[in-house]
Parts: sequence; structure tokens; C-alpha cells
Amino acid sequence: MADVLQTRRHDPYPSRTSERPKLIDREDPVVHGAADVGPLTSEQVKTFDRDGALLVESLFDGDEVARLRARLDRMIADPMVRADERAVIELESDEVRSIFEVHRSDGLFGRVASDPRVADAARQLLGSDVYLHQSRINVKPGFAGAGFWWHSDFETWHAEDGMPRPRAVSASITLTDNYPYNGPLMVMAGSHRIFVTTMGETPEDHYKSSLRRQEVGVPDEDSLRELADRCEIKQMVGPAGSVVFFDSNVMHGSGGNITPFPRSNVFLVYNSVENTLEAPYAAGERRPAFIAARDFEPVPRR
Amino acid sequence: MADVLQTRRHDPYPSRTSERPKLIDREDPVVHGAADVGPLTSEQVKTFDRDGALLVESLFDGDEVARLRARLDRMIADPMVRADERAVIELESDEVRSIFEVHRSDGLFGRVASDPRVADAARQLLGSDVYLHQSRINVKPGFAGAGFWWHSDFETWHAEDGMPRPRAVSASITLTDNYPYNGPLMVMAGSHRIFVTTMGETPEDHYKSSLRRQEVGVPDEDSLRELADRCEIKQMVGPAGSVVFFDSNVMHGSGGNITPFPRSNVFLVYNSVENTLEAPYAAGERRPAFIAARDFEPVPRR
Repeated sequence: MADVLQTRRHDPYPSRTSERPKLIDREDPVVHGAADVGPLTSEQVKTFDRDGALLVESLFDGDEVARLRARLDRMIADPMVRADERAVIELESDEVRSIFEVHRSDGLFGRVASDPRVADAARQLLGSDVYLHQSRINVKPGFAGAGFWWHSDFETWHAEDGMPRPRAVSASITLTDNYPYNGPLMVMAGSHRIFVTTMGETPEDHYKSSLRRQEVGVPDEDSLRELADRCEIKQMVGPAGSVVFFDSNVMHGSGGNITPFPRSNVFLVYNSVENTLEAPYAAGERRPAFIAARDFEPVPRR
Repeated sequence: MADVLQTRRHDPYPSRTSERPKLIDREDPVVHGAADVGPLTSEQVKTFDRDGALLVESLFDGDEVARLRARLDRMIADPMVRADERAVIELESDEVRSIFEVHRSDGLFGRVASDPRVADAARQLLGSDVYLHQSRINVKPGFAGAGFWWHSDFETWHAEDGMPRPRAVSASITLTDNYPYNGPLMVMAGSHRIFVTTMGETPEDHYKSSLRRQEVGVPDEDSLRELADRCEIKQMVGPAGSVVFFDSNVMHGSGGNITPFPRSNVFLVYNSVENTLEAPYAAGERRPAFIAARDFEPVPRR
């Protein structure tokens, strides 16, 4: 037994266990290095450090948004794309809701992923070169009631993908206007400094169902209540073309949307090249590379 | 056939038919009479007239809210109340979500219903004495995802209860804080001037299921899209003790709520004594009196 314990990696972010969930203070910094070189102002870096999320309004202009939306519309209507394993189809409606790894499959989204406005911001926050851990486009039509339950991305990336530390940042480029009333992204501001452990073992091929509705690796209501007592809930609202940068460990989710106003975005996850994946921390198998890249080639600087 | 047509009442608000839904201009005024006597300022009356809804912040103070919440908690925990037909039990959770006719069953809620802050405001807007068409208390716990689909109350009250005209006003006294992110009441501002017809026949005993989830008498997506193009969506947010007054025909609904923050309110529907119920306009049977009062006794002036 002692031998077994010694060969296990020390894990400051344990999860998916049989123990009662708990709130653990994050060991790692949020902003790495001085963060004084890059497109974000020191005020913006401070906001990101404090809240774990930052909205930059209208970072992409109307023409760019129109081009990205047109490309997205073309892709989700394409039977070849639909048949690809990288497309996530909603059970109820039979519609494409997400397409993964678009930075590889599509030239336009590939260029967006290396655009300095997002990639340099990620380098600035993470204090190193970055690579794309995941990319996808998401489509949420209007009148689509369901929300998305609270979760920390890092919890999944650590447990299921073997990401060692929360040294990754997501950029969500919004392609539609986000209002307080059409189910925008919500974060618990400051929750990125707390790791909430979850109960239960990761089932085999968990990703196949969890991309539609996650049931393991989700925080419990008591932990969320405690977190919401400590952290103000903020809605990330702004016009199409805005970008939300958020820390890999910030607790986030979204409410339902009964309005006619749809939401779509390009979602890019930048991980530090000093934080590349190891074996999963709490899962038997790795998830496919289109969900969790195994190619750690840095995003080219432009 | 001609005879049948002649004996049918003229109905400027037809609904629950086999015809394609349409948007009809409202014939009736929103504010009746001069509305110059009462607790609402002329500015507030103007807002109500324009939007079909008006939020008055902190009309009830903290002590009053605490007393009302305590009474509500006691009632929903009471097995006798739970067993009463006037309690609505949620299917999934088996919890009490609403209790009807509280102005009769409970002295405290009875006094609130005749409180001048709400009853005089209703008289001011409706230009006459008023009686209670319906009262209820509502409880929506935190983490309860589901929202409530768009609807006009008048559509139902007209079709199923026989309310001739949209000359009724609802007052929702909020007993919890309403934030933009915990699924507050949303209205389409200005939609009260448009009557959206709905398709389909009212089933027998429709109220038994419709109080949980309504399927007939709900507007279609095309009509809602058109309405949302014309009318700005407004969320009714404010601290506990605020009151939302809204017109019987305003299109309203609520999104889901994944936050820990519950919502509860006291809901009072004042109808003009000059607008008392007739036979239902599009249903075989009347709904029970605890949902649609048949006693038109005016609320006493205090």
C-alpha cells in the first residue's frame, strides 16, 4: 500500500472521488509572470486576476462577425460536417449544437485562433507560449429553454484530460448579442481561486454523453451555495464581437433562454506550453484528441 | 348557420381556434379614466400605459417581507394545505409551488390583498372599484432550472374564465430579491397593446395540467419573434418587497434559474367590477372559483 501511495502523483486538485465534496484553495497563480506585454491593459489584467473572467467589448468588428457567422452557418448545414464525430448533435432537436477542432478543419477559424487579439492576450495572462487545448463553435438557437449547469472546465480537463494545473484560459468570441435575458454566460466572480471537488467515478466514454449533459464532475448544490455566498454572480453581456476571457477554473454556467434571440460563439482554449497534458488524473482513458489536443505545437505568433 | 352566428357574442379577442395565429390590435384602453387619484405618480401611470408593466421598488418594507415569507413557509409546510386542491404540487420534486386563493384562506394575505399600496393602485389604473379575480403565492426554489414560457394571462382568462376585456391588473409582491440572473419576470414592453391569438381547442379540465405546464393557449414562435421585434424585453428586477404591476394582456415569461437564489412572491389579480366574468369564450367549462373567482364583491377600501 505504501508503495502504491508513493508512486501516485501528488495532486492538489483531487476530484471524482467517494469523499464528500470540499472547497480547496487554489495553489497556482492566475496571472503568470508580469503580464506587462500584450494587448490587455493593466486594468483588464487586474479584473481577470480578481474575477477569473474579463469581457472585452467589440474586439471583433461587424464585418468579421458577419464572416464568422456565415462560415458557422455553412458548417452546421453541411452533411459531411454533421456526420463527423467532431459534431455534437442535440438529442431533442437533432440539430448540430457544437463542432470541435474548428481551428484545424477550417482555415477561417484557424486564423481566428492565432489572431493576436486573442492569442497574445492568452500569452500575456499565462506568461508563456500557448497551444490550443480545444476549439469549437457553439450554436444555441432562440426559444431553446435549457441552460447549462455550473462547472469548472479545469475540473474536467484535469480529471479526464490530464491537464496538470489551472494554467489555461478560454476565449469565447461572441457572434451574437448577449443580453441579460437570453441566457448569457454567467461566472461566479472570484471562484477561480477555489477548487470544488466532485463525487463519483468517471464512466467509460464519458465525453459522449457529457458533451450533451454532464452528470459526473459537476459540483453539488451545497458547494455552489457556499461559493455563491462568497462570489458575486456576473453575467457576461455585450454586443456581438465581444470576447470573454475566462480562467480554466472559474465556476460558470448559463441560464435558460426563452427569448427568440439565439447565441453562438467561437470557443478557444489556450493552454500554456509549460502545462501540457499528462495521463488523466481521474479517468481510465484519455478523451479523443479533437476534444483534448495531444499536439502541443505552440500557436504561431503573428 | 346564420342563426348560430347571430347568437354568438362579438369577440374582438378570438383565440383557441383552428386559424393560423395572428396579432390583433387591442381595442380597449390600458389605463381607464384620468388615473389622477391614487398612490401612483403620473410618471408611473405613464410607464404602465406605455410598457404594460411597472416595477415599484421596495413598496413593502423588510419587516413586512419577513412576515409574509414566514407565513408562506408555514403554509407550504402544512400537510393540510398540501392536501387542499388549491395547492399546486410540482411533478418532479413533489414540492408545493403555488397555493391559490390565499386572500380567503389566510388573514395576513387577505389584508395584503386590500392594502391601499396595491389595491388603490389597481383602482387608479382600472378607473373603478376592483375585486380579486385570483390570488396565489408562488415559490420557486434555487437551482430549479425550468423557466416559464411566454404567455398573456388575459388570453387564458378570456378563453377559459370568460373575462370580457383586458381590464385587469396583476400585482406581484416579490418576497425575494430578483436579479437579472435568477430567472426574474420578463415582459415584452408594449406587447399589451397586441392580442396574439393561439391555436387549438381547450381540453377538458385543462387547468389541472396547465398550472404546471401549459400547452394550449400558448403563443407560437413566429408570433413571439414578431412581437420581440417590436417590443423590448425588460426584466423586472429589484429587492424583495418591490411590486410589479402588469397589464392582463402583456406578454410575459421567465427564463430558467440555475443560481442558488430562490424566488417567491404574492400574486394578486385585480379585475374591474365593470368587467366581471361571463361564460368562457373558448372552453367548455368554467375553471374552479379558487382560480377564477365568481364572487365579484369589491375589495373594501381602507
